[in-house]
Order: sequence, then C-alpha cells, then structure tokens
Amino acid sequence: MKKFVNDPKDYVPQMLEGLALANPDTLRYVPEYNLIMRADAPREDKVSVVQGSGSGHEPAHVMNVGKGMLDAACPGDVFAAPPADFVYETVKLVASPKGVLLLVNNYTGDRMAFEMAEELSQADGYAVRTLFVDDDVAVQDSTYTVGRRGVAGNFFVMKAVCAAAERGADLDELYRIGEKVNAVTRTMGMALTACTPPAKGSPLFELPDDEVEMGVGIHGEPGRNREKLQPADELVRELLTAVVDDLPYTSGDTVALMVNGLGGTPIGELYLVYGRAHKQLAERGIEIRRSYVGEYCTSLDMAGASLSLVRLDDEISELLAAPAEIALRVF
Amino acid sequence: MKKFVNDPKDYVPQMLEGLALANPDTLRYVPEYNLIMRADAPREDKVSVVQGSGSGHEPAHVMNVGKGMLDAACPGDVFAAPPADFVYETVKLVASPKGVLLLVNNYTGDRMAFEMAEELSQADGYAVRTLFVDDDVAVQDSTYTVGRRGVAGNFFVMKAVCAAAERGADLDELYRIGEKVNAVTRTMGMALTACTPPAKGSPLFELPDDEVEMGVGIHGEPGRNREKLQPADELVRELLTAVVDDLPYTSGDTVALMVNGLGGTPIGELYLVYGRAHKQLAERGIEIRRSYVGEYCTSLDMAGASLSLVRLDDEISELLAAPAEIALRVF
Repeated sequence: MKKFVNDPKDYVPQMLEGLALANPDTLRYVPEYNLIMRADAPREDKVSVVQGSGSGHEPAHVMNVGKGMLDAACPGDVFAAPPADFVYETVKLVASPKGVLLLVNNYTGDRMAFEMAEELSQADGYAVRTLFVDDDVAVQDSTYTVGRRGVAGNFFVMKAVCAAAERGADLDELYRIGEKVNAVTRTMGMALTACTPPAKGSPLFELPDDEVEMGVGIHGEPGRNREKLQPADELVRELLTAVVDDLPYTSGDTVALMVNGLGGTPIGELYLVYGRAHKQLAERGIEIRRSYVGEYCTSLDMAGASLSLVRLDDEISELLAAPAEIALRVF
Repeated sequence: MKKFVNDPKDYVPQMLEGLALANPDTLRYVPEYNLIMRADAPREDKVSVVQGSGSGHEPAHVMNVGKGMLDAACPGDVFAAPPADFVYETVKLVASPKGVLLLVNNYTGDRMAFEMAEELSQADGYAVRTLFVDDDVAVQDSTYTVGRRGVAGNFFVMKAVCAAAERGADLDELYRIGEKVNAVTRTMGMALTACTPPAKGSPLFELPDDEVEMGVGIHGEPGRNREKLQPADELVRELLTAVVDDLPYTSGDTVALMVNGLGGTPIGELYLVYGRAHKQLAERGIEIRRSYVGEYCTSLDMAGASLSLVRLDDEISELLAAPAEIALRVF
C-alpha cells in the first residue's frame, strides 16, 4: 500500500483535523463524534442539513460543509456507516428551532444508523426528517443495499436542498425539494482499477489489466459486468445509455451533466470524458445547461468515473446555481 | 494502460474540446494552435497573460484560463513544450495594446519555444515580456532543465500577476510582481508511483512497491533520492525541511501553504498531509495565513504530492485573495 498515512486507524481523524486546520474560520472539528460542522451552526433562521456516510468518498461529505451547503457531516470510518449515537449527537449539536434534515445515501448500514438517530432525536422533541438518495442505475439490489445505491448524484440533491435551506425553507419544503431532485437524477459509474482501504492495505478486489467493472459501486461492490477495456467513446456510450434509458431522458430535455472522478483518475481524462458525453447527448437532442467535471464522490484511490444526469426545470436550475462556499475552493 | 482515452494522439485535443464544451460562455478552443483562450480576450484595458507548458499537468494551465486568471494557455502535447509558432500565434490572438506577459516554467524546451515566440512577436511590434518560474528546491539542474524547475508554486506567481493585470497594472509592474512572488516561493514534491503517458502506454519509470522518489519532477524526472516508504509524518517532515531550509522561512514568517496532489492521490490523503504540515510549521513558529489543498499541477496519474510555501506580505496576500473565475469551479 502506497499512501500518505500514519497509523491506518488514524486516517479519518487526521484527515478531518487537516480539513479543519485548513479552514479555521469556517469549520469546526469535533473529534469526540468524528464530525465536521460549520463554525456558525446552528443558525436559528434555517433548517440544519446534515449528511453522513462512510469515509473514503471525499470530498463527500465532510468537504461539503459550509455556507450554502451542509451544516455538518458525520462520517464513519472508511466505507463504514457512522455509529447511530454519533449521528444523534450531531443532531443535538446543530439542532435549529426550524429542524434538522438528514441526507443519507441508500445503504443498509447508513439507513439503520440514521433511522435510529432520527428516532432518538424525535423522542427528545427535535424536529427531524431523513431523506434517502438512490440515484445509481447500475443494479437493483447490491452488496450493502436493498434497492438502488446512492452515489455521485447525491451532490445535486444536497446542493438544491441546502440552497433552499439557506433561504429559510421549512423542513417539509426541503424534503419535497430533495425528493424531487432525487427523482430526476440518475448515475452510473465504472472502475478501471480497484481501491485500497488504508486499514486493509491491499486492493479491495482484483481486476485484470485489460478489464473494467461496469456499474461498480462506490465501495467497490460489483456492478453489471466485467468487460474488456475499450476506447473512451465506447465506455462513455455504455454508461450514458444506461443512464439515459433509465429515467428516461428524452430529446428536448435540458439537463445538468456531471463527470465525477472516483479518486485516481486525473482531471484531464475527466474533461475528455465530458467532451465525448456532451457530444453523445447532443446527438440525442438532449441539451446540457450545467456542467460539472471533477471529483464529487470518490472511492479512495480508485481509477474510474461516473456520469450523472439531472433533468432541469426552473426551480432546480435556480437552486443549483445559488452561491455556496465550501472547503474545496480554488482561491 | 487503463485510461479514458481514444486514440492516444487525440488525448490533448479531446481534453481541450471537452474543457471548452463544459465552459461555452467563457472559454474558446482554437484547435489550429491547440490553445484555450478567454471568450472576451483580448481586452484593451489590461495586459494579456499567457501561460504554456506541456500537457499532463492539468489543471495547469488550460483550466486556469478565466476572469482574474489567464487570458490564454497554449499547451504542448503531453510533457512536451508547445511549438514556438503556436506560442507566437497565441500572442497575436490575445495581444492587447497594454502588452502580453508570457509565464513559463523553467524547462529548456519551454524556454526555447517562448523566447523564440517573444522575439518573433517583438519583431512584429508587440509589447511582450517573458517571466520564468523556478520554485522547485529538489535539484539544481535536472533532466530537462538548466537551473531549477518550475512546479506547483507557479500557481502563486500566476494568481498574483493575473490579479494585478485585471486591475490594469502595466507590463513592467506585472513582471516586478511575478519576480517578487517567485523569489519567496519554494516547492518540493515526491512520487509514490510513476505515471503513464497515453502515447507511451506504460509507466514512465519503475518504482518498487516499498520505495518513493523524493524530489521527483513533474515529468517523472529523478529527484534527490529513492527511499523506503515511511509514515506520512516522516514524509511531510522531509519535504517541509527541504522547502523551509531553502529560502529559508523562519520563525515569525507568515506564509501560504499548498498541498498539491500529483494526479492519483485522493483529496482525503492531501488533507491528512495538510494537517501534518500545518502542525510542523506551527512548531517552527511559522504562521499559515492562506491554505491551498487539492490539485494545482499534476503529473498525469502519478500518486504523490508536493508542498509549497510562499512568504506573504500585504501586497502578495491581497493579490492572492482577489476574486477569479475559472473552469475548476465547484458550482
């Protein structure tokens, strides 16, 4: 294993500590509960939005905490759900009189932790709702999932919900917006290589030098099939066809297109993929209004990418375009 | 080779095409000269700033074109300087009455191309100056260099110069600012793995599973030495000591700290490295005022990172904080 890591069990806390040290004015790291929160949370004039998941998907979600985005993120260890009591403590720390919305990708472990935390919080009198994201079209059920998995398209649900929260929308309205965005968002990804969790020290699965895993999960779960590596145009066509046909997106639709890197793929390749996907969508009569190219939801050092589409209307477009300030800034 | 690529000779043009398609309102791709320019360039009220280098270092420099940043970037093929006549054509396309500043990292091939383009442009009556960046402390001369190499610290020179250009500073003033920032900027990087150029199809060098290349160049050039992989704290200490001792940076200095990923290292590890470097600088009495964590200058898919320091004064701090809008935005 070749990584920048000290003791592997300190990987997540030392990453969170670094994140907070790099953003001393805006973020607060609470080591007792392994969480990152906004320095100004909770704010009485807005619903607090919290997201949790296993670590190893950065920037999701600890680097999405900030103005116009999350109020807090409570990650678990690498590829492991956070403990329910840490989620519960997070709710208590950021609870606003307007309530708390929990955003969670649909994995069995995460569902259990967040539903338990929701129950504990509600028993204490907190106004809490939990929204699940399941944008991955690759497989119906999966290693860690009943139903579809939540992957990179989660970004769009989070961005829209958090923009509305910043403007004072109430808890039910946020839930409505989140469900609406989730319903028009679809994603599929593929792996060129496996990834190596720090505590395991070796690749999570074996993938021959000339094969790819089409429809891979963000924890290295199997996808639809293994196939031979092909030129980018063919790989993009396969991903895009699966995504487009699922909703389906049709000629005349306006969409946001995301090309998400899985951690080990350089930005140059992601822009190449973007260009090919853009042209293939144009051939289908689908118009791209908003473009996202980079890393949004990764799988440690996995080489690979996912494509996401969101069908836009005025409400969603406007929420996605709202200003936000998070750790992953360029300046 | 496992990459998202079609014919390897199309890697750079298809990447540039994707970049322009993702930014239709702000960027223009000129395939004849392999360049990316601002849609609003040239502007009569500012010096145009152009940067060139080999490709494979993205986001440097084609993804740094935009308001408050570069007016154009003219990359060569992967790890190859752009042809002098392409640089010359770029100058003509973006020439402003206030002049053109060419920013170049110090590599022999790039120097030749840009100095020739400068001469050709000056013979045509254009006001052009060329500024070289050489922030890498690893080695005195190198495979492709007489004198020190220019690496990730280039970002700070570019950002400061472009901020001043946006406000109307003249060519000589930009040159002064660029030399000033370069003089207080130092960088050293290290490789955990080699990188694979698309046209070569195999790793550029061999690095055993338990060794790192300390002081590696951004084209995979040898650094100071090969050594055994160590815990992150020790790797950071070695990089930081080389950087700090070189200027030197001393107790009481205020600095910007950049942790730059080389392409294959996930953002979680970069934040872990940031935290360790932050603490080691604090022990030395050096205060971090600005933090940069992410990919600024990469080497294709190489796993590894570099650390850069800039000694700040009021002028540099203010220029680094100026607003800018480039392709690599989060929203």
